[in-house]
Amino acid sequence: MKNTFGNSVSVTLFGESHGEMTGVVIDGLAPGIAIDTAFIKSQLKKRRPAGKTGTARKEADNFKIISGVFEGKTTGTPVCIIIPNEKANSSDYALNSFIPRPGHADYTANKKYHGFEDYRGGGHFSGRLTAALTAAGAIAISALKDKGIDIGTHIARCAKIDDRKFKDLKADIDKLNSLDFAVLDDKKSELMREAIISAGADGDSVGGILETAVTGLPAGIGEPWFDSVESMISHAMFSVPAVKGIEFGNAFKDINLRGSEFNDSFRMEDGKIKTVTNHNAGINGGITNGMPVTFRLAVKPTPSIFREQKTVDMLEMKDTSLTIHGRHDPAVIHRARVVVDSLTALVLCDILALRYGTDWLGE
Amino acid sequence: MKNTFGNSVSVTLFGESHGEMTGVVIDGLAPGIAIDTAFIKSQLKKRRPAGKTGTARKEADNFKIISGVFEGKTTGTPVCIIIPNEKANSSDYALNSFIPRPGHADYTANKKYHGFEDYRGGGHFSGRLTAALTAAGAIAISALKDKGIDIGTHIARCAKIDDRKFKDLKADIDKLNSLDFAVLDDKKSELMREAIISAGADGDSVGGILETAVTGLPAGIGEPWFDSVESMISHAMFSVPAVKGIEFGNAFKDINLRGSEFNDSFRMEDGKIKTVTNHNAGINGGITNGMPVTFRLAVKPTPSIFREQKTVDMLEMKDTSLTIHGRHDPAVIHRARVVVDSLTALVLCDILALRYGTDWLGE
Amino acid sequence: MKNTFGNSVSVTLFGESHGEMTGVVIDGLAPGIAIDTAFIKSQLKKRRPAGKTGTARKEADNFKIISGVFEGKTTGTPVCIIIPNEKANSSDYALNSFIPRPGHADYTANKKYHGFEDYRGGGHFSGRLTAALTAAGAIAISALKDKGIDIGTHIARCAKIDDRKFKDLKADIDKLNSLDFAVLDDKKSELMREAIISAGADGDSVGGILETAVTGLPAGIGEPWFDSVESMISHAMFSVPAVKGIEFGNAFKDINLRGSEFNDSFRMEDGKIKTVTNHNAGINGGITNGMPVTFRLAVKPTPSIFREQKTVDMLEMKDTSLTIHGRHDPAVIHRARVVVDSLTALVLCDILALRYGTDWLGE
Amino acid sequence: MKNTFGNSVSVTLFGESHGEMTGVVIDGLAPGIAIDTAFIKSQLKKRRPAGKTGTARKEADNFKIISGVFEGKTTGTPVCIIIPNEKANSSDYALNSFIPRPGHADYTANKKYHGFEDYRGGGHFSGRLTAALTAAGAIAISALKDKGIDIGTHIARCAKIDDRKFKDLKADIDKLNSLDFAVLDDKKSELMREAIISAGADGDSVGGILETAVTGLPAGIGEPWFDSVESMISHAMFSVPAVKGIEFGNAFKDINLRGSEFNDSFRMEDGKIKTVTNHNAGINGGITNGMPVTFRLAVKPTPSIFREQKTVDMLEMKDTSLTIHGRHDPAVIHRARVVVDSLTALVLCDILALRYGTDWLGE
Repeated sequence: MKNTFGNSVSVTLFGESHGEMTGVVIDGLAPGIAIDTAFIKSQLKKRRPAGKTGTARKEADNFKIISGVFEGKTTGTPVCIIIPNEKANSSDYALNSFIPRPGHADYTANKKYHGFEDYRGGGHFSGRLTAALTAAGAIAISALKDKGIDIGTHIARCAKIDDRKFKDLKADIDKLNSLDFAVLDDKKSELMREAIISAGADGDSVGGILETAVTGLPAGIGEPWFDSVESMISHAMFSVPAVKGIEFGNAFKDINLRGSEFNDSFRMEDGKIKTVTNHNAGINGGITNGMPVTFRLAVKPTPSIFREQKTVDMLEMKDTSLTIHGRHDPAVIHRARVVVDSLTALVLCDILALRYGTDWLGE
Repeated sequence: MKNTFGNSVSVTLFGESHGEMTGVVIDGLAPGIAIDTAFIKSQLKKRRPAGKTGTARKEADNFKIISGVFEGKTTGTPVCIIIPNEKANSSDYALNSFIPRPGHADYTANKKYHGFEDYRGGGHFSGRLTAALTAAGAIAISALKDKGIDIGTHIARCAKIDDRKFKDLKADIDKLNSLDFAVLDDKKSELMREAIISAGADGDSVGGILETAVTGLPAGIGEPWFDSVESMISHAMFSVPAVKGIEFGNAFKDINLRGSEFNDSFRMEDGKIKTVTNHNAGINGGITNGMPVTFRLAVKPTPSIFREQKTVDMLEMKDTSLTIHGRHDPAVIHRARVVVDSLTALVLCDILALRYGTDWLGE
Repeated sequence: MKNTFGNSVSVTLFGESHGEMTGVVIDGLAPGIAIDTAFIKSQLKKRRPAGKTGTARKEADNFKIISGVFEGKTTGTPVCIIIPNEKANSSDYALNSFIPRPGHADYTANKKYHGFEDYRGGGHFSGRLTAALTAAGAIAISALKDKGIDIGTHIARCAKIDDRKFKDLKADIDKLNSLDFAVLDDKKSELMREAIISAGADGDSVGGILETAVTGLPAGIGEPWFDSVESMISHAMFSVPAVKGIEFGNAFKDINLRGSEFNDSFRMEDGKIKTVTNHNAGINGGITNGMPVTFRLAVKPTPSIFREQKTVDMLEMKDTSLTIHGRHDPAVIHRARVVVDSLTALVLCDILALRYGTDWLGE
Repeated sequence: MKNTFGNSVSVTLFGESHGEMTGVVIDGLAPGIAIDTAFIKSQLKKRRPAGKTGTARKEADNFKIISGVFEGKTTGTPVCIIIPNEKANSSDYALNSFIPRPGHADYTANKKYHGFEDYRGGGHFSGRLTAALTAAGAIAISALKDKGIDIGTHIARCAKIDDRKFKDLKADIDKLNSLDFAVLDDKKSELMREAIISAGADGDSVGGILETAVTGLPAGIGEPWFDSVESMISHAMFSVPAVKGIEFGNAFKDINLRGSEFNDSFRMEDGKIKTVTNHNAGINGGITNGMPVTFRLAVKPTPSIFREQKTVDMLEMKDTSLTIHGRHDPAVIHRARVVVDSLTALVLCDILALRYGTDWLGE
């Protein structure tokens, strides 16, 4: 399935940056999940560019739920959400069809779609489509929250500036979900914002690391081999534009530990089985152990920069150079955060519905 | 699909560590792919423990192909490969059913399967099942090789010792595929081996980083959103026991670059479009661009160590401790290498068959 | 996948009878397929109720393609088509939420969705959603036609009146595709129409048999066991509301033949291998043999009738009776015809794309 | 998925008629289902040829469960069952590779697999593979029985002889499941057997109709559009060799009724909602209504007959004729019966597990 993900709960994504609308269909959601329109709006706001840290294309994201909701609740049938593109300005992109922008999907789209692709503004590859994912994810996040499952993501690093680590997960997640620019340490938040603006002023861009924590997941969900929780989450996360790496816990650092240090001992705590440490990030053998699931994503610097870049002319098959105009972000990491939360929620709904049945999330 | 992965080409895995056999079904392979039994054997040998760097359980891996091959070639119907377990020694594992080993899947299996799981030797979660994946992967590797697509993996880091980086990919891949212990720098190879043996002597274990390169992939394969090449590969890789992280290229380091540094400029080279650098690891927007696809995997230290560890008694619901006996590896990274190559080949066969049709790999 | 069908080419359906819109996403269509808007309109017209043979709810079916098409051709990315509901009149359906109409899905929807379903006008179960399938199918039909594959369906039986059998398939398919009421024998067509109107005048309804023929399919497509061409087509056909049976060829009659009569002998014809008869309906072992694929569908009489019917009150849990008002069809078989053609085309696109790759249909 | 069917519970089939083994993997079965080896054997016996009504190839079906079962119960991990081919006699089939037998899959297999197929005895298309399905189905049948869901199938028609209709479903199903030749009326049973033997004596074969009833299914399972209960069952049934048609209830006859006759009125019965008639065969809008689910299958006469038949020589591309030797059945309908029960059980396990979660069947 090319643009569909999930089994018991599935998501289908469609649209192009400069087409009439983008949208999403979520199927398999339990009946009876309350739709919180204000929350969907607030989630979309987190994704929307703000001030100088984001692109000048400011879409209102006037989403419309056109199916699967009746009297304010999910019906159990497919929920389709459409979002019109109101501020597309295609004149900026006239050359892209045969002069591919470095780091973008222009070249690969051409190789896959043979020139029939809508190349304007990245077409189907545009981050614009993540607005629909965010709206869909907001419904999933609400449903999980009602089951005691919470998700929070912070910018752990941006432009070489590090946020503080997670401390009190509950308080940290609450704080993050109240912020549009999700950094735990307010001072670092300010520094990161400045660094993004500064990169933009240079006609350049920056990347970073997003770190996500999920609390409240029951032990025993996920599958042993190919549909491990790690497999399912990573599959979803590499759908987020600019994500190029994922580690559960802090794996790339912790592989330097010995087994005696890495292993998470079990102990009784208030009558429940817990682990003392959480190097395995809440997952053993692909299946949750009831501890928080945490992962970190490498987010590359935005490819759209305003400096002259070397590229090729695909018609003439010769070297050329390109200076991008148009409206772009000096960073997407702060906007990608809510997309990560959204896809995390959607993939967890899928895993939970497979395990506990299609009604579980709505009961 | 719990133990099945892939669409056009799919893999289904079954078996338990101490059951009678483990095995795999590969479906969707093109008809007419030659089966190289000697190559399958040599691949299984790479996975098999050797000397003091591996477990004392030395299985002969007497695999048998029981379907889908006729007169030495694939027929196009499902290929089932079975491998008997000949050296299982279950007496070592008598306690595991209710005293979970830290870092293993004992506890999560119990939460998922309610005590009905075959807990002996890790049961269905055992690395033993990767023998079947290796046999299946050997067929896929051969088929890809005939199409000019080569895969090679080295131990980039183990026990804090770094191998040299890839230089000449063709020569490096050839060298790696001739080695049982896949390290490019012979001196570092020796040091890593010593470090593994030393950890074993301490009753402890070590982990590291595997780095894989794939050359010869055509541009334009993969899907834009949920079935990006990164999504598909990562989904498969987290099926490899002990893998806890993946980065394409060197993403967790390179996110510190600015966009102007990270972007891979295009240029003409011998009449073909190439990129000057390869920070995007051969993939833009989820789709191959014709450059080598590279990724690195974080492999945790083996959880089986021979020191006393704290755990719980799940029957009595109280704290206890555990000292593991039995036969275990002080590291699995060197054995996991061929499993990574195998799953990479299988997932690429799936992506290619989807793109070019079910006959393509055999033509 | 609940409301998604297909692998290489997939269809996702959404919407409710009295919701704002219904729609469909088709993913996996090859890039470069020309969109013939006039043809889509003419297909929708075939589905639309006409005069006294159909419901008084006459929707204009003002479809809009909101993604996946650029400069008049498919891009290769998901095509989303939305169709607004403009003539929904919900006041007629106020009682349905707890007094289920016999033969409809009211009761089963309530059992599945626990009362959260949009019960108005059949909600998600409404034949209204087949408009979107028809629009999607029109694109698939065009694409197949360009490859020499033609599909035609006639009303083989309605209200006990039989159409003549297929004679010259090419001419018959051409004729059928030019008709809104698809009967080969003009006289029988008139009789069927009268019988439908007469049933409507009685406040009653009629059913019948649809017969479909597909010509031009290459030999060798389909899968041996679970994804046989029969399995795939039947899976899709039982999605058409009111379909309760399918036979390939004329199987329920021909099972009375002996093997020596039923078997289709092979012979050379103009240098090509053909069969003398076609009792197997173009399919052996689940795979096409190059002969026409034919199948017949049992279409039940429309459940909406205007007579008093016995039912239950689900709130009070007691017997009651019900007389349906509102706008309904005395038959749907003539309108279902184009839906059958559409789903046939979509499922064949899926099978062909799996076999020959994702570009094949557009090349 | 070519040889895999199902989502929450899936079945993967492999093997060839004259290969070393055939087998099946069932994944997604709940943990804790008791394995009744004697019942599996008795089910295999029903499928095995007996006396003159079946082929002279009498396989012992010495199945072996090699994974997924521990201490007599399912573990929740994939169950693989292998069955050796012990009586294959390939010398009978030497010509089949280029002189296709009419009615068989020889020709289509060659078109699909380009001559790489194992043509001996029908290869992967052989009814021999249904032994593995029967063994798998036996586990599913047991699990459903423990949940109060019963399945029974009779030969409703064979060689133009009709069995009596279902009367008391409970008693009829019990009787059928105790029989190896499943006919309700003992006299008709004798006549059918004689007719089969007589056809065999003529070197010919006969077909017929199988009718299945399922009782005890809860209301509210299945999906509205593409994964309707009818879609899922029909998809599975067309995997049974020789099945060419399916009708739910008696649809091809009942389409002649008017809506007022066909509609199934609801009424209260012992405090529960039932329907007065069951023309819809327990399914409305694709979803169960709690009444028995019934369907009838058209089973074609066995293609293997011992008379000279016209065919072609695919190497020489010229007309020729063929007289089949070897060991074949004058009918398969009586043997297909248990395969139908088995696949019905497997597909229902899938639908139920999707609805109620992966543990439900084992709880």
